Amino acid sequence: MRLNSSALRGLRRPVSCRPQLGRQQQRFNATNTGPVNQAAFWTTNKVLLLSAFTGALAYTYGIWDAGSSYKKDAAKADQPPVYAKRAEMEKAIEEVRTKLGEDSITTDDDELHRHGYSEWSTINVDVLPIAVVYPKSTEEVSEIAKICYKRKIPIVPYSGGSSLEGNFSAPYGGFCIDFAFMDKILALHDDDLDVVVQPAIGWMKLNEDISHSGLFFPVDPGPSAMIGGMTGTNCSGTNAVRYGTMKDNVLNLTVVLADGTIIKTKRRPRKSSAGYNLTGMFIGSEGTLGIVTEITLKLQVIPQETSVAVVTFPTIRDAASAASKIIKAGVPIGAMEIMDEVQMSVVNKSKSTKKVWREVPTMFFKFSGTKAGVKENVGLVKDLSKQCKSIDFEFTADADEQKKLWSARKESLWSMLSLRKGDEEVWSTDVAVPLSRLPDIIEVSKREMDELGIFSSALGHVGDGNFHECIMYNGKDPEEKKKVEECVTRMVDRALEMEGTCTGEHGIGLGKKKSLIKELGLDTIGVMQKVKLSLDPHWLMNPGKVFDHPAQDKPMGT
Amino acid sequence: MRLNSSALRGLRRPVSCRPQLGRQQQRFNATNTGPVNQAAFWTTNKVLLLSAFTGALAYTYGIWDAGSSYKKDAAKADQPPVYAKRAEMEKAIEEVRTKLGEDSITTDDDELHRHGYSEWSTINVDVLPIAVVYPKSTEEVSEIAKICYKRKIPIVPYSGGSSLEGNFSAPYGGFCIDFAFMDKILALHDDDLDVVVQPAIGWMKLNEDISHSGLFFPVDPGPSAMIGGMTGTNCSGTNAVRYGTMKDNVLNLTVVLADGTIIKTKRRPRKSSAGYNLTGMFIGSEGTLGIVTEITLKLQVIPQETSVAVVTFPTIRDAASAASKIIKAGVPIGAMEIMDEVQMSVVNKSKSTKKVWREVPTMFFKFSGTKAGVKENVGLVKDLSKQCKSIDFEFTADADEQKKLWSARKESLWSMLSLRKGDEEVWSTDVAVPLSRLPDIIEVSKREMDELGIFSSALGHVGDGNFHECIMYNGKDPEEKKKVEECVTRMVDRALEMEGTCTGEHGIGLGKKKSLIKELGLDTIGVMQKVKLSLDPHWLMNPGKVFDHPAQDKPMGT
Repeated sequence: MRLNSSALRGLRRPVSCRPQLGRQQQRFNATNTGPVNQAAFWTTNKVLLLSAFTGALAYTYGIWDAGSSYKKDAAKADQPPVYAKRAEMEKAIEEVRTKLGEDSITTDDDELHRHGYSEWSTINVDVLPIAVVYPKSTEEVSEIAKICYKRKIPIVPYSGGSSLEGNFSAPYGGFCIDFAFMDKILALHDDDLDVVVQPAIGWMKLNEDISHSGLFFPVDPGPSAMIGGMTGTNCSGTNAVRYGTMKDNVLNLTVVLADGTIIKTKRRPRKSSAGYNLTGMFIGSEGTLGIVTEITLKLQVIPQETSVAVVTFPTIRDAASAASKIIKAGVPIGAMEIMDEVQMSVVNKSKSTKKVWREVPTMFFKFSGTKAGVKENVGLVKDLSKQCKSIDFEFTADADEQKKLWSARKESLWSMLSLRKGDEEVWSTDVAVPLSRLPDIIEVSKREMDELGIFSSALGHVGDGNFHECIMYNGKDPEEKKKVEECVTRMVDRALEMEGTCTGEHGIGLGKKKSLIKELGLDTIGVMQKVKLSLDPHWLMNPGKVFDHPAQDKPMGT
Repeated sequence: MRLNSSALRGLRRPVSCRPQLGRQQQRFNATNTGPVNQAAFWTTNKVLLLSAFTGALAYTYGIWDAGSSYKKDAAKADQPPVYAKRAEMEKAIEEVRTKLGEDSITTDDDELHRHGYSEWSTINVDVLPIAVVYPKSTEEVSEIAKICYKRKIPIVPYSGGSSLEGNFSAPYGGFCIDFAFMDKILALHDDDLDVVVQPAIGWMKLNEDISHSGLFFPVDPGPSAMIGGMTGTNCSGTNAVRYGTMKDNVLNLTVVLADGTIIKTKRRPRKSSAGYNLTGMFIGSEGTLGIVTEITLKLQVIPQETSVAVVTFPTIRDAASAASKIIKAGVPIGAMEIMDEVQMSVVNKSKSTKKVWREVPTMFFKFSGTKAGVKENVGLVKDLSKQCKSIDFEFTADADEQKKLWSARKESLWSMLSLRKGDEEVWSTDVAVPLSRLPDIIEVSKREMDELGIFSSALGHVGDGNFHECIMYNGKDPEEKKKVEECVTRMVDRALEMEGTCTGEHGIGLGKKKSLIKELGLDTIGVMQKVKLSLDPHWLMNPGKVFDHPAQDKPMGT
């Protein structure tokens, strides 16, 4: 993400800056070139909804309906999407007010800006949503979708607002759906190790609220992330090496489709081979296939014992080699994070932690399990680190000490931000490569930055081959900015040459669409476009994200 | 599955029985009611393939092509699929011979029967494929797909042939693609903990071949299962409680689409947030979305130490309660299997193991990890079992002893088969429920069978809430058969009432399509149908499986 010096305010959602409604108006007129079609399919699906669970007769009937609905409502892949004119959008705003109440929707400029612009993001557009809607239930989301479907209004879902690639910006205007009032735990099934939640509950709040059950949800991205957005980007965090990413930790989803139809992707078994894995299809689709309104999450048992270790190495390659030795030895690690000497010096300079750190490549480990298991694993990691020339090995089972040791990792981004002066900005991006290539990509990328005199630090989830680079530069110097952009592009290209990916956990959004084309090629993206067109024929669901409509010859974003 | 007394031969693929070509002929004529369309899309995709990776210009151009291809080749959801007449199929056979060589395709009756009929399966149809094709590469599969797409010929993929729900039967004839010659390991990346394989390598053979690397692939269904079919059904096995199912253990897929386009779903990173999770979408789709020709599998480190324990309990509920206590305690179990007293007596009667077993509800545990870890976990399980009135607790770390202890679990199905006399058949089916409901569904289902005087045994992967029932009955007695079918239906309904699934690991195939409708409802199945139509507009990919075409008013199967 790029962050200017007001970024820290940004975290608290600034409502200062005025939206550019002039340009917004212009965009609405520009994108409108045709009449608004009437939608018939959502009425059809009411029939389907009623006829569900009634066996063969309803099956036949319902399916015939579904069949005929295609005719009325076929995807137009050879024509760019046509969205409602402003006048039509204002009718929709009135319709929402009438159906869901006065307070359910706002057009307040500050609110529009807060929901359409992100200081965290690598990219922003000069368009804002025309309104922000605050549904209170899945049924209300369905009502909103039906109104938008009928009038061809784009829908952008919003929960934590902490995504990094313009994932919730509104390049085509339309409605932003803020789930602020859908932030509840709906059901905790502690004997089944799962919990049903709404999109706007944060993962940290969730874990506080269920701690009495002895269970926790292991996916741990940035502190402000909420389950809705985490589902949208298939995010992860430091625990992924042990518990996997979002797609590995969701049992089912309730989704509102473009036409307002409400579906549930699965029931609540731990495993199933019943039909397509729609749960996995919606996770990571960034709201482009449907609007997720309920999520059933797998929970894990809080480990009896945890411990943290910090280990220093002479070079980043030694550190990375230790990581790979530890993985190949099958040591069950809770988390394994790497930070380079620059990042460690940044932590010291910023004084964001009490402890003064050695300014050398450093690895942070989390261990968890039973007492004996943890003790044994700490020993194994110590021995394997020694084989890779480790310098110091500090570890503790004491909770406060653990916090202190882990703090440098936790504070890494803030440390970098706090050092900015004047027009300095920070660009943070991530790639992931096969495990054995991590030392190579870290070394080459660091060398390149040094040679170009760019100040940057490297850190990563080394157990997943996931590497983050944090670059500080003068945002007002076009040449330096260009140099940084070129460096980032080369880092992505390098990851792709190593059979890696352009993003390990941040998603594509507006920011990495061209990288996605490089990574997967047009035929694979063609499959994604067909899937989207089949569920969202009018391209209303978070349009402009991940990839563009087949008929758009000027893709938006980078 | 139903198995008559020649089932054991069946496992060795009998080639005795003659196919019913008369009916097959009849079916081909019946299903043919229109002309054969010419396919244009596959040529389009050649252009896309060429234009991939060439940036924005190619992007624009390629996407425009993709766009226009929809027009030429739109899905016809309101008309049932129309397949080639026999004469057209014969032309296709000639075309394959010319393109791929004489030996690449056969119409031998025994081969057709071997590929179109399964003694393992709960359901068979009176139609066989018209030919069996043996491709040697992804490119050859693409050639076959293009021929079939042009002439509207169904394609059914085949690898191990051990599926249970008619997953590879050919209700609409067409070509069976047998991957027998695509059974290689293409690349072992031991430093990255992954391996690239072709569809027809068995999971056991794979593990033998890579054992030198100290790594293994953990998904362990029936011994004859191959990676291709395992991917198709999202199968699992006893290790799933620790390592997950297929969808958790695949990094990427190479897939040939209906029109012959070859795509790769991802590159080779351990984790990615780049675009839709197509890997997860194809896994478990039973070959209805495309033909998987290469699979990159995650590998695990072979544990330093393993141990097996067998624990007996007074009642099945005590055993299941122990299971849930052990899970809630967070004890890292390698596998946790349950067998009821009937199954244990069956094992004794069949003399399939040397050891004579107590005929009481029994749990089988696998432990794996480091020496100290395993020792500690065995102790924890022993204590928790005692709290649930366990009777005996036998365990061993000796490899031969482990085999002996695990053998009763491994031999459970064979034991049942070997007891059949005359016309007796065995029906084996599976459901999965949330963890806490497993004791309930086992108890109620057992009671119902007892009351009806049906001989049946219960076993299951208790750590996943996955329950299997094995029923022996007289296949020639329509009343008894009807009674069994009703019992199975009630067991599925019960699983659904408990928020479970109609199949935990066997898949839907032809056998459980009506159950899938009950489980997910028509709107969710409507989403699956739309996704399929978007990728397979002529409904050629393994048609009749999982769900039917929207315009088919007489669904095939049960």
